[in-house]
Amino acid sequence: MTPVGLHYLLVHYDIPAVDPATWRLTIDGAVEAPRTFDLGTLRALQAHEVVATMECAGNGRMRLRPHVVSQPWLQEAVGTGRWRGVRLRDVLATTRIAGNAVEVLFTGLDRGLEHGEEQLFARSLALEAALDADVLLAYELNGGPLPPQHGFPLRLLVPGWYGMTNVKWLTRITLLTEPFTGPQQLQSYRLRSAEGEEGEPLSRMLPRALLVPPGIPEFMTRERTVVAGMHLLEGRAWSGHAPIASVEVSDDGGGSWWPAALDPPTLGPHAWRRFSTEWSATPGRRILACRARDESGLAQPDEGTWNLGGYANNGVQRIAVDVIPPAG
Amino acid sequence: MTPVGLHYLLVHYDIPAVDPATWRLTIDGAVEAPRTFDLGTLRALQAHEVVATMECAGNGRMRLRPHVVSQPWLQEAVGTGRWRGVRLRDVLATTRIAGNAVEVLFTGLDRGLEHGEEQLFARSLALEAALDADVLLAYELNGGPLPPQHGFPLRLLVPGWYGMTNVKWLTRITLLTEPFTGPQQLQSYRLRSAEGEEGEPLSRMLPRALLVPPGIPEFMTRERTVVAGMHLLEGRAWSGHAPIASVEVSDDGGGSWWPAALDPPTLGPHAWRRFSTEWSATPGRRILACRARDESGLAQPDEGTWNLGGYANNGVQRIAVDVIPPAG
Repeated sequence: MTPVGLHYLLVHYDIPAVDPATWRLTIDGAVEAPRTFDLGTLRALQAHEVVATMECAGNGRMRLRPHVVSQPWLQEAVGTGRWRGVRLRDVLATTRIAGNAVEVLFTGLDRGLEHGEEQLFARSLALEAALDADVLLAYELNGGPLPPQHGFPLRLLVPGWYGMTNVKWLTRITLLTEPFTGPQQLQSYRLRSAEGEEGEPLSRMLPRALLVPPGIPEFMTRERTVVAGMHLLEGRAWSGHAPIASVEVSDDGGGSWWPAALDPPTLGPHAWRRFSTEWSATPGRRILACRARDESGLAQPDEGTWNLGGYANNGVQRIAVDVIPPAG
Repeated sequence: MTPVGLHYLLVHYDIPAVDPATWRLTIDGAVEAPRTFDLGTLRALQAHEVVATMECAGNGRMRLRPHVVSQPWLQEAVGTGRWRGVRLRDVLATTRIAGNAVEVLFTGLDRGLEHGEEQLFARSLALEAALDADVLLAYELNGGPLPPQHGFPLRLLVPGWYGMTNVKWLTRITLLTEPFTGPQQLQSYRLRSAEGEEGEPLSRMLPRALLVPPGIPEFMTRERTVVAGMHLLEGRAWSGHAPIASVEVSDDGGGSWWPAALDPPTLGPHAWRRFSTEWSATPGRRILACRARDESGLAQPDEGTWNLGGYANNGVQRIAVDVIPPAG
């Protein structure tokens, strides 16, 4: 589990200051009767807990060439949390959804200017995806109240989907009879190779494996040094599409690979899995790499495909390591 | 108080994985008898709590020209926490300090390469400064256990001093009869204008005031937009040298200034103080600025002085704001 404060954050605009006593969640749109919930009423519903790995759609952006201007993530924009809240479908079941509803729109309290337009951050989900049993309205993280920066007092949690899906500081849930056309749906978070393209919307996280860098870092370069000998390499791997099927590791930058051992999925189906392997480190400069494949057949590419938004770059991680002879 | 996860972090090397059951703190060097403490023994001593504002010595580095390569802080590297632990002097009182001891050396468990040298992060304090009643060995932050990234299970807290003083993941406290000459004392954290200079060591935080940016941000530029009219501006000001004496605010980039109101120091002598003022915003581009002065007479300069390490740049904050006419 990622400690609070080490879980990645992306705050589109500002973190709103919310008074939980006056905060309300409104359910409206294509429903029989709009509903309003306060926090106490939500907490009185059946609680449900999901451990989920969440990754920013921009994770890996900094490694694309040419450089894409936005949050310059290398590969740190990921975390795994224990989220607790109520099932979205239980909340929606308190009213009747119109037969012609197709999407559910989630609106947060964070306000800003983007694509030339003043907006509250808002994204939609297809109704079927929204009714999944593991889609939560979460009010706790890792056993404590949701921190302000993670959406206090309530956020959406859609396990397996990129981070932008999980709307924070929720204030409104609206049933729509036409697909949402807001800027976070049609302009941001689409894979496009050029301006003007319609592009493909981002949804589920692509597979990725990351190694815990072995040895010790140099302060400025962050390059690693290890002493020659046997080392335990370990890391985490995840995919939003299917369970992880295999992870392979290389110490020559991807020229040759060997399989790592996968731990059982002890944190459940939506969380990353630990992998580990022994590494016989011989003196010289080594380039460690790792790559994951999931049970749907998706595999990490050597390098991600450049796109206008710099999204979904799940190219393999490479870690330069200087292996030095043992002292004495 | 800054929520955990929004308090700034600077991790020199890696965050060590510490098993609290086997962790020990050793007191050695110029003492009558070396001592070793486990966590339970430390927690059994009289607890003490301090609310302290902590700022990285590199805060403001990114605004220096020419650019200094290191952690590129704008002005976000500050936070205020409620730290709980034991007084260092109570721990030192469990043995007898030699009469010729002059400094106390604090060594953490984080290991790395820096200045061409493998090291555990280590910094010293003059004995007199170390014996101050508010210098803590802290094991809690904001009412919870110290998070891993803040030094679990134990860190030094020296209120008023820049962040590097507050050694994390403490493993050893050594009484010295000669001043410490390690790389974090003689090479890093000194104000130098050129290589080879001895330089002045950094110690207490210079005064600084920061405004909460008003209005709403643009996603990419982070520039602000507010609607014309009266606005409450507020912020926080601190100094490690003396209580804050005054804060002034400008909306023309520092051409003219007016005084802000200072709240009482409700968080105690080591924490930032809130300030506030009304602002009559008229349409056009405005440049908000604020500057603090402390009771020792230290005042923020318009721009900080360039130095080799990019430290201690407490030049005044400037926030570009587009004031737009009210709609309709």
